[in-house]
Amino acid sequence: MSEDPQSDLNNLAMSEAARPLLDKVIKHIRDNCDPAYREYEALNAEKPSRFEYAPGQLEIIEDLKAKARAAGLWNFFLPDAETGEGLKNLDYAYIAFELGKNPLASQSMNCAAPDTGNMEVLERVGTPEQKEQWLKPLLEGKIRSAFAMTEPDVASSDARNIGTRAVLENGEWVINGEKYYISGAGDPRCKIMIVMVKTSPDAEPFRQQSQILVPIDTPGVEIVGPMNVFGHDDAPHGHMQIRFRDVRVPEANILWAEGKGFEISQLRLGPGRIHHCMRSIGAAEKALDLMIHRGLTREAFGKKIIDLGKNMETISRARIEIDAMRLLVLKAAKAMDVLGNKEARIWVSKAKAMVPEKCCKIIDDAMQVHGATGISQWSPLSQMYIKQRTLRFADGPDEVHHHVIARAERQAFEASNERRNAARADTGTGQAFEGP
Amino acid sequence: MSEDPQSDLNNLAMSEAARPLLDKVIKHIRDNCDPAYREYEALNAEKPSRFEYAPGQLEIIEDLKAKARAAGLWNFFLPDAETGEGLKNLDYAYIAFELGKNPLASQSMNCAAPDTGNMEVLERVGTPEQKEQWLKPLLEGKIRSAFAMTEPDVASSDARNIGTRAVLENGEWVINGEKYYISGAGDPRCKIMIVMVKTSPDAEPFRQQSQILVPIDTPGVEIVGPMNVFGHDDAPHGHMQIRFRDVRVPEANILWAEGKGFEISQLRLGPGRIHHCMRSIGAAEKALDLMIHRGLTREAFGKKIIDLGKNMETISRARIEIDAMRLLVLKAAKAMDVLGNKEARIWVSKAKAMVPEKCCKIIDDAMQVHGATGISQWSPLSQMYIKQRTLRFADGPDEVHHHVIARAERQAFEASNERRNAARADTGTGQAFEGP
Amino acid sequence: MSEDPQSDLNNLAMSEAARPLLDKVIKHIRDNCDPAYREYEALNAEKPSRFEYAPGQLEIIEDLKAKARAAGLWNFFLPDAETGEGLKNLDYAYIAFELGKNPLASQSMNCAAPDTGNMEVLERVGTPEQKEQWLKPLLEGKIRSAFAMTEPDVASSDARNIGTRAVLENGEWVINGEKYYISGAGDPRCKIMIVMVKTSPDAEPFRQQSQILVPIDTPGVEIVGPMNVFGHDDAPHGHMQIRFRDVRVPEANILWAEGKGFEISQLRLGPGRIHHCMRSIGAAEKALDLMIHRGLTREAFGKKIIDLGKNMETISRARIEIDAMRLLVLKAAKAMDVLGNKEARIWVSKAKAMVPEKCCKIIDDAMQVHGATGISQWSPLSQMYIKQRTLRFADGPDEVHHHVIARAERQAFEASNERRNAARADTGTGQAFEGP
Amino acid sequence: MSEDPQSDLNNLAMSEAARPLLDKVIKHIRDNCDPAYREYEALNAEKPSRFEYAPGQLEIIEDLKAKARAAGLWNFFLPDAETGEGLKNLDYAYIAFELGKNPLASQSMNCAAPDTGNMEVLERVGTPEQKEQWLKPLLEGKIRSAFAMTEPDVASSDARNIGTRAVLENGEWVINGEKYYISGAGDPRCKIMIVMVKTSPDAEPFRQQSQILVPIDTPGVEIVGPMNVFGHDDAPHGHMQIRFRDVRVPEANILWAEGKGFEISQLRLGPGRIHHCMRSIGAAEKALDLMIHRGLTREAFGKKIIDLGKNMETISRARIEIDAMRLLVLKAAKAMDVLGNKEARIWVSKAKAMVPEKCCKIIDDAMQVHGATGISQWSPLSQMYIKQRTLRFADGPDEVHHHVIARAERQAFEASNERRNAARADTGTGQAFEGP
Repeated sequence: MSEDPQSDLNNLAMSEAARPLLDKVIKHIRDNCDPAYREYEALNAEKPSRFEYAPGQLEIIEDLKAKARAAGLWNFFLPDAETGEGLKNLDYAYIAFELGKNPLASQSMNCAAPDTGNMEVLERVGTPEQKEQWLKPLLEGKIRSAFAMTEPDVASSDARNIGTRAVLENGEWVINGEKYYISGAGDPRCKIMIVMVKTSPDAEPFRQQSQILVPIDTPGVEIVGPMNVFGHDDAPHGHMQIRFRDVRVPEANILWAEGKGFEISQLRLGPGRIHHCMRSIGAAEKALDLMIHRGLTREAFGKKIIDLGKNMETISRARIEIDAMRLLVLKAAKAMDVLGNKEARIWVSKAKAMVPEKCCKIIDDAMQVHGATGISQWSPLSQMYIKQRTLRFADGPDEVHHHVIARAERQAFEASNERRNAARADTGTGQAFEGP
Repeated sequence: MSEDPQSDLNNLAMSEAARPLLDKVIKHIRDNCDPAYREYEALNAEKPSRFEYAPGQLEIIEDLKAKARAAGLWNFFLPDAETGEGLKNLDYAYIAFELGKNPLASQSMNCAAPDTGNMEVLERVGTPEQKEQWLKPLLEGKIRSAFAMTEPDVASSDARNIGTRAVLENGEWVINGEKYYISGAGDPRCKIMIVMVKTSPDAEPFRQQSQILVPIDTPGVEIVGPMNVFGHDDAPHGHMQIRFRDVRVPEANILWAEGKGFEISQLRLGPGRIHHCMRSIGAAEKALDLMIHRGLTREAFGKKIIDLGKNMETISRARIEIDAMRLLVLKAAKAMDVLGNKEARIWVSKAKAMVPEKCCKIIDDAMQVHGATGISQWSPLSQMYIKQRTLRFADGPDEVHHHVIARAERQAFEASNERRNAARADTGTGQAFEGP
Repeated sequence: MSEDPQSDLNNLAMSEAARPLLDKVIKHIRDNCDPAYREYEALNAEKPSRFEYAPGQLEIIEDLKAKARAAGLWNFFLPDAETGEGLKNLDYAYIAFELGKNPLASQSMNCAAPDTGNMEVLERVGTPEQKEQWLKPLLEGKIRSAFAMTEPDVASSDARNIGTRAVLENGEWVINGEKYYISGAGDPRCKIMIVMVKTSPDAEPFRQQSQILVPIDTPGVEIVGPMNVFGHDDAPHGHMQIRFRDVRVPEANILWAEGKGFEISQLRLGPGRIHHCMRSIGAAEKALDLMIHRGLTREAFGKKIIDLGKNMETISRARIEIDAMRLLVLKAAKAMDVLGNKEARIWVSKAKAMVPEKCCKIIDDAMQVHGATGISQWSPLSQMYIKQRTLRFADGPDEVHHHVIARAERQAFEASNERRNAARADTGTGQAFEGP
Repeated sequence: MSEDPQSDLNNLAMSEAARPLLDKVIKHIRDNCDPAYREYEALNAEKPSRFEYAPGQLEIIEDLKAKARAAGLWNFFLPDAETGEGLKNLDYAYIAFELGKNPLASQSMNCAAPDTGNMEVLERVGTPEQKEQWLKPLLEGKIRSAFAMTEPDVASSDARNIGTRAVLENGEWVINGEKYYISGAGDPRCKIMIVMVKTSPDAEPFRQQSQILVPIDTPGVEIVGPMNVFGHDDAPHGHMQIRFRDVRVPEANILWAEGKGFEISQLRLGPGRIHHCMRSIGAAEKALDLMIHRGLTREAFGKKIIDLGKNMETISRARIEIDAMRLLVLKAAKAMDVLGNKEARIWVSKAKAMVPEKCCKIIDDAMQVHGATGISQWSPLSQMYIKQRTLRFADGPDEVHHHVIARAERQAFEASNERRNAARADTGTGQAFEGP
């Protein structure tokens, strides 16, 4: 590690300036979101269909949004942006941890995925017209959006595999192909999609892709249905399967420029991945508390369950891993602040490869302590597990992140005379390491 | 190991006599069950409610049952029983492996849980009247049944915790309490339950429980609703939550005798656990095949996915573990045949503690190779995972089986002069083990 | 699995015929080897140097050999051979389990590695002259031998990497190169080596290697010194580093024929690997007993250590894994008997890839239960660990075996219409698996 | 987590003030220690016996000490002490990482264990006379010392088990008992031991122990011999077995006061454990580099080994775990600075329970990539492994730290209304969590 020990990279404390925002967020969630969510859930029984809202549900959300906006809690997700609060990623990470505690919290402050990533992209590479038409209503929370990248028939973790084609004909992009796991496209309020397409098959591999704005009601866009995770459709948000058949949008709907698709996706993924990871850690904390609660309140074989077998060690290992994960995620957020998203991408990959996998383990252990109740509807654990398991694929499967990390490590080793020389000195045939 | 190496315990080959039955089962599943299941599934859309059958579905099942019976494939689950084929557990294990491949197969041959366990118990300890009233229609496949043991408010893996009370009043048992995860009680054909109750709170701990026959339509029996696993209700079979409020049944409805509840449950669990484990191994085999199939048919980064990273090693480790599990399960089945269910219970616990946990790992690895499709409705993997994860609680959580195994090992060590002396000789303070 | 459930492959019981031999081996070890070993060890202090025997030590060994021979316990390692007992591999596996319990046992019955493999090779492919000169004194226990395959500068798990060259000049093979980890070459009684060399660099990859008999005192053979494992030299047996500089032996010293080197090594490795694995299981059993003994005889925090934390579960998991490993090893041995070494090689790889790794885990757990004593000279555990850790490289590192297994599994899948069709049917895009 | 996100606890950057010291330490090690160590090692062949130094070796050490002192690098280990530099634990942690790179480095700056802990204890609780007699020569590097706590016949991780007795007779403590694994007591320069004894068997459990200064040449002190780790004696430092038979020292040799033994040991262990952990992380970094070096410089099956199988993922996982461990260790060091050793002890336990176990895994993986060379004397890996494995017992086995952590977590949960209420709200029987 050539990192400077004195570097600000190692200062993981939240900034003084952001602290009042965190306090306001905590208060808003406790005072507004928590009671509203109970009301909202109670209305589910009156939904006309899976992908519609029940009468009254959207009103609850709009009311929360009004309260958040009135409290100055709006659009603060954009790091270093002109709009929003211009929060540092590190500060946002501490806030994201709180956002994970209530399902309506992010949306109420207009900080919900995938809108956040889409707004960030529009803010950075959108034309004035694109901003006027789509960024403005998104920033105002009037519409919602989706990002269509993943495809069913290929390993789309390799961007070169993108098969959806867009061809320029008479000033229009004509799009054909199929996407799946398009999160948020099931929401009736979703009006616009950013679609990753292949525009330039003859360019070099990472210049073949572009991103294009496609209104969801464009003729030829067919929402085939929801993809499930472990049998659940996550309605009304939804993870939709979508077919594009001769979908035509104006040439000006392209983002940035032809061939910039891969570059744009690099830009968007850093912060989003970290937000996921912070929320994952919140989930792991909750699983740990549920595990302790169950262990303390049930007895078997004459003892509290927490005192049986390996349960205390399981709790200790969960505590240690959660603390280590939290520090790594904070470090990745800080690296984005100090080094920029591009230089920090290895840190982001480290967090992304580490956190959901370990959270799955912790939640699974918590289930086991609960007995059959742990996988029933009487406990949130199985739904938490499904969420974390799903994250091991979202924004790149674990394997892709591990590859990115190992490649960077290998390159750093090869670039360091000091590391190479030391390793060579320690492995020379004939040299003897005799013992302690 | 004091086991005789020459012992028949080590002969894990299927018997010659049972082989034709296996062949007939395979043929029946392929020729009858597989096409019928597709038909059956297509009718699901017409179900009037979650816990009812669609018109035509029960006819499909009855038709399968008729075909199976005509082919002599009926009630062969009972080991060494007068009724049925009198199959050895080892032979049945090879058959159970096939039964796991089609969801209607077991039922079509009247070999489906929980009826099998209930019939076995009635066969062994039922009175002539009980047999006439309940065993007969069960053996004929005319009704279905449930076994109500698990309770929501206690760790019911410890039988002493059973809280449902039955009190004898005026020649009737009056039952009060609550059960959950009562599998099969959602099926409209389910007519009878065997209910584990506490009858004798002042007896010694494992003599306090009794098992009582309770017709499901007895006044006071309230089916509160289905328990979910990972959000699924497994309708119409169902895992029901049931309340008993002053439920009255005749005194003669007790099985065997008062205080025999724990003993009866020991009797039933051995074979059932092994059947679960054999089906689990079938599931792991399927997951392995799906993993290889996916790895061979998708490409990323210029290679087949199977050739990326650790995937080949993952396949090898799955293969090794499956083979080792299969042998252990066969050994447990053989132990039941040779030693009897009681002596073989440690072998059964070994299989039960090992198999579902390792199957979860193998299926999870298969999901990961599939990318997001692996957890979607386009792959059976997530449902297979849920099933195996659930089995880590059914018939006793892993931890209870580990405790049983360790206790037996410890007792065997303490009982063996040879083992104790050898261990003492190898750990005497002052003795030196200087190196290789 | 297309394996026939009725196949004799599944009968893992020892043969009746071999049982008396096992009983005699057990008696010989208990009555003769155990006391002799204590005497032998006591003489270590008088060794003139690391790689010499102390006065009296060889006499003890010779006396044991005489007793074994008199009892008819001699050379019974050769499976299905004219010499020796013609034991089945399965029967030998049960015996190998006992051999692992005393360090002098194998040698006393002339069943010690690497002589066993060398004798087997000479028996099968040696010329009458080679047999007269080398096999005869080996079978009589008059000399010892070594097998020189591994090389320090290449990954010699890939036979194509063999760099030691042998060139035919004037009726003599002239050998140049370097080997390391040549086990047994440190013993002053070692007289002959079988050396794997490259003779035919222009042949196809697996036809370039040959095996040549090289007397250890041939001019140009330099024993550079012992290789250590974890700092230990395993004297006087030793794992030697050997240089060959213009070493000349007669043309007739080649085994079988030029280009047969790879084929011969395939032949020798099967049984040897299984013997290692059986002894490993014996080590794991011993570790389990030591763990229980320690757990029962020490207290901390007011309890026996065995009753603290996860220790009972650790014992259960060790028991389960040992039983599963034993069955897999027996199956591999049986596969060699029924299918032949070549067809059975995948089973052998499964055992080799599974057993040492899991035994390391079990021994490591036993150490942890012991506290610091577990890694001291007061316990055999650290030496047992080193032995098992070393086995993860011997006869091919785990990774090579995993690759062999996965490749075979993949080929079997591709060759089976049934498996391919079933997997395809279960993963067709658009098919829905809706839930349990 | 109730921890304040803005707290200085989260600032893990080294202080500006300490940075020059770190730079000087790095320079001293590179310019002085590295060449000196090669010279020192070359003299090993001339040692008269295992536990003596070779002529010239001590001169090399003294020369290094003179150079370090001249450069102002002396006794800087004491956190916040009057003597030494008064470094913060966090700053020292960054330095400790460097100290781990050369075996003579710590000693050359008078910062070597166990002297550091002994000096810290004397500094804090020693009387003026004790300081004059023992602390002064230790601070000047004129003598060395040992700390005798661990006992062979009991689980001494439980202080209540201490069996060595000290009885006050005629103004003298009379000590009887046995200790083992007394590190450093083999060095001929070791003059003084701090011995943990039981003085007050009738006091409450943690008030029964005292610590007493015992000159190593006191009559009745018998150094029985060295304890080995994995067969190594670590001479001349040594981990000695010591018997105390009627050993008499003046009453004034007690530290602090009678019954303070447990309290003193709490005080000493915090910083020492963190220093161990930082050095462990240095070892893991080295293992990672060796793994990459080997993977890049060897080929098999037509590829660089690094590109085979799971090796890239193994590298990534090592990188992630090392970074997470480093952050946790820095956090523990910072916690000692901010909260004090007592409040920070849970953080120290987290580091101690996490780091050596994970470092063992990383080093083991590195060995596997090396093939047989990885466990030979040609690679430092096996010695590094032994060192880390040993640390899983030193200063309390992993299990004790896990118990401490889990107990603290459980108490924190019980003490937090917020956590208890939230957990209860999420697990109320009857509440439904319907799905994502």
